[in-house]
Amino acid sequence: MSATAYDRLTSTFRRIGALRDAEAMLHWDLATMMPAGGSDSRADQLATLKAVRHGIITAPEVGDLLDAAESDGLDDWQGANLREMRRAWVHATALGEDLVEAMSRATSACETAWRRARADDDFAHALPKLEAVLRLVRDAAAAKADVLGVAPYDALLDEWEPGGRAADIEPVFADLARFLPDFLDRVLDAQARAPAPKSLDGPFPIDAQRALGVRLMERLGFDFAHGRLDVSLHPFCGGTPDDVRITTRYDEDDFTKALMGVLHETGHALYERGLPSAWRGQPVGEARGMSVHESQSLLIEMQVCRSQDFLAFAAPLMADAFGGTGPAWEAENLYRLYSRVERDLIRVDADEVTYPAHVILRFDLERTMVAGDLAPADLPGAWAEGMERLLGIVPPDDRSGCLQDIHWYDGAWGYFPTYTLGAMTAAQLFDAARRTDPAIVPGIRTGDFAPLLDWLRENVHAKASRLSMADLLSEATGRPLDAAVFKAHLAARYLD
Amino acid sequence: MSATAYDRLTSTFRRIGALRDAEAMLHWDLATMMPAGGSDSRADQLATLKAVRHGIITAPEVGDLLDAAESDGLDDWQGANLREMRRAWVHATALGEDLVEAMSRATSACETAWRRARADDDFAHALPKLEAVLRLVRDAAAAKADVLGVAPYDALLDEWEPGGRAADIEPVFADLARFLPDFLDRVLDAQARAPAPKSLDGPFPIDAQRALGVRLMERLGFDFAHGRLDVSLHPFCGGTPDDVRITTRYDEDDFTKALMGVLHETGHALYERGLPSAWRGQPVGEARGMSVHESQSLLIEMQVCRSQDFLAFAAPLMADAFGGTGPAWEAENLYRLYSRVERDLIRVDADEVTYPAHVILRFDLERTMVAGDLAPADLPGAWAEGMERLLGIVPPDDRSGCLQDIHWYDGAWGYFPTYTLGAMTAAQLFDAARRTDPAIVPGIRTGDFAPLLDWLRENVHAKASRLSMADLLSEATGRPLDAAVFKAHLAARYLD
Repeated sequence: MSATAYDRLTSTFRRIGALRDAEAMLHWDLATMMPAGGSDSRADQLATLKAVRHGIITAPEVGDLLDAAESDGLDDWQGANLREMRRAWVHATALGEDLVEAMSRATSACETAWRRARADDDFAHALPKLEAVLRLVRDAAAAKADVLGVAPYDALLDEWEPGGRAADIEPVFADLARFLPDFLDRVLDAQARAPAPKSLDGPFPIDAQRALGVRLMERLGFDFAHGRLDVSLHPFCGGTPDDVRITTRYDEDDFTKALMGVLHETGHALYERGLPSAWRGQPVGEARGMSVHESQSLLIEMQVCRSQDFLAFAAPLMADAFGGTGPAWEAENLYRLYSRVERDLIRVDADEVTYPAHVILRFDLERTMVAGDLAPADLPGAWAEGMERLLGIVPPDDRSGCLQDIHWYDGAWGYFPTYTLGAMTAAQLFDAARRTDPAIVPGIRTGDFAPLLDWLRENVHAKASRLSMADLLSEATGRPLDAAVFKAHLAARYLD
Repeated sequence: MSATAYDRLTSTFRRIGALRDAEAMLHWDLATMMPAGGSDSRADQLATLKAVRHGIITAPEVGDLLDAAESDGLDDWQGANLREMRRAWVHATALGEDLVEAMSRATSACETAWRRARADDDFAHALPKLEAVLRLVRDAAAAKADVLGVAPYDALLDEWEPGGRAADIEPVFADLARFLPDFLDRVLDAQARAPAPKSLDGPFPIDAQRALGVRLMERLGFDFAHGRLDVSLHPFCGGTPDDVRITTRYDEDDFTKALMGVLHETGHALYERGLPSAWRGQPVGEARGMSVHESQSLLIEMQVCRSQDFLAFAAPLMADAFGGTGPAWEAENLYRLYSRVERDLIRVDADEVTYPAHVILRFDLERTMVAGDLAPADLPGAWAEGMERLLGIVPPDDRSGCLQDIHWYDGAWGYFPTYTLGAMTAAQLFDAARRTDPAIVPGIRTGDFAPLLDWLRENVHAKASRLSMADLLSEATGRPLDAAVFKAHLAARYLD
């Protein structure tokens, strides 16, 4: 019996998956191990792998096989795999080679200009390159919109958040935007009335920080036979599901940030590791999208590890790791440190309460730019106006304004909303999990994370990309995305 | 003007080169960083990259382009590049896909059987798999012999040693085989009459060993902006010319082996790093072959770093690194330690004097097996007979006999002679270098390796694969490979 169209596609996509895994490992090496002089040859390796992958997926027979496989009599998972194959194929074939190459050149040039512009606080230096990128992004959005049958912005969003649509996000974000300013005032009032947290005095040796991170990672379920913890300038979770590589950056004067960063990346890592091994290398076996991914890191970091329950378990381990004694090392004080809220101009430094304001601002601005209603030249003014409205603060310069994030300069448009969708999803999943299994919260308090991990494995990780994001959330929590759960979490943590 | 056939080939080979570089980095990671659980997915990545590379070079148009490029009016380097492209293409296309795949499966199975057989000292366990590998190796040798127009064994040798022919190696090795037994007796006699070297007492902390290795690597010219030093079970030099990764393995009780291992790999690394950057990714820009590569590591290790001159410079650094004092740490004693000779059953532990006997044995046995005149079942007996004849010792078991090396089990037939060709080439190159530039030896004595490196860069590294191995050696030393230089070196070091 000859191979079916579907079988032939799985071979093609297995090859694509192996090449993408190779790229992931080379990216990890670039960020953690590579000497500076290796950058040009590494860029060649990565560009070649990407081109080879693109050549395989856009080969003429793939489209025919996708059509033929529809009549192959597939089961649920296979059908979902075929759907995800087609999604990848549509995204890959929607843009002509000229546009792909122009975009690659434009974003490289723009990223370089951005680095200097940010260092010099000189938005004008990056502006022409940003305008060029936006022109190409709008072309790409229009081309993909045509093929996908969605609005141009949604075509961009769909790359990061399959099935994500601005029309679904708008009301949720609008609701949050109405809720946050007043809520933030109340949180800051309450915080001002409470005793200030006691500071932890270092130095905190890096070896001890690393050992504590490893200890907590292992408790949470990170398997070092299938992963590593290393150092990089910008922390990330990379590698492959069978070899997950997370990174952090240590500060000898403050261990709290690096430690929470490690736990955040551990959340990403547990998701990757929990993807179903039977579907390795196939599109349906991949993570569902960026908002589910971010939900897994934020569930571990925000819902679990910054909670009083977790800190009751972890406080003695932290004290032990650094020889800390006294009231500053008690769980109550660590909780106050880890739930501090303030109005900050920088997204990556923002706490859980103010973070959505940063995201909503960027979501609004990028949609307006993609629609052609805001020119990059007017971005600094629009940014200041939005920050004033959403957070009540105004950046004194562009470095702490519209130059702070790499995303737009690097061509990642439609990515920002996934951060806050992820935070809301995390709250909703954790709420469902602890209602379903009453052993989860006591487990967290005693350092037994197996009940939590079991629930996540079954309801999120093992599902991979079989369901849409919306269906995954509904199956796991019994309802669609609901901002009320996130708001209730914030109220419970920051006002009670 | 449209691209010439030659131009199109350079694009094709640049792509192949980038994929091969990616494989090299993933191999390095596998040996140094990868957690055990990553091995299956890594095997997929490497197999896929290899298959993609094979697909690119065997695409039907490559043969036509190679023919067409002959009339493109190429200069010397381009002509040599075209010759090397054709060489790579002939080796890639000589074997049918069935044979390549069968070989890949057979060597995988045989390597696995060999690991157990060696651990259990059970040759019979590996024998059927070795027989299967040899059958395929003989098929491959016959197929390549047809296309290359050479004898079957030479077709295997040619893969590691381009242009290498058994008929050229035989008389050289025969001469060495006659010279060595008596010479070895004299060396051992002389050694027995001299005072025994004083031992160095540890422990030697690994951090201090590493720091000393790095210090000497830097002095020799290793550029850490383009390379790294790490740890692996089996030391090697990997990575790419712009990002050379060498490894070692430390022993807290004895720093001398790891240190000399680091210097050996540094020799390989300097060669890779010195390949001409204008020809990156092109076949002519690659190292000339395994014997030239080994000559560069052995020149640094055997000719330079085990010499009295080098040890006069390095002895105080060694003493300083470990707080060593007293006569054991003087250069004279370190030289005695580093030039100790003994009859040993294990090739990788062998000194410079006895090493050729190990290689000559393997060269004779593998030629006889490829010719069909020795069955793998008779290997243990033939091995014992050869060791007795060449070194006067007989292995008590197969673990210290024909099971000690991975090469044959892993499909690397025709590789062994390059070790001793490399040792002889190293002696001849170093002899020519120090005659040409009288600053080289005094430089070694004072830790100034620039004159030596300059000579190697100009006469070996920068030549890459432009010349045949024979022409490279003649241009650099004024004569073809001459065992007399190697023998004179041995006499000067071990008898004077």
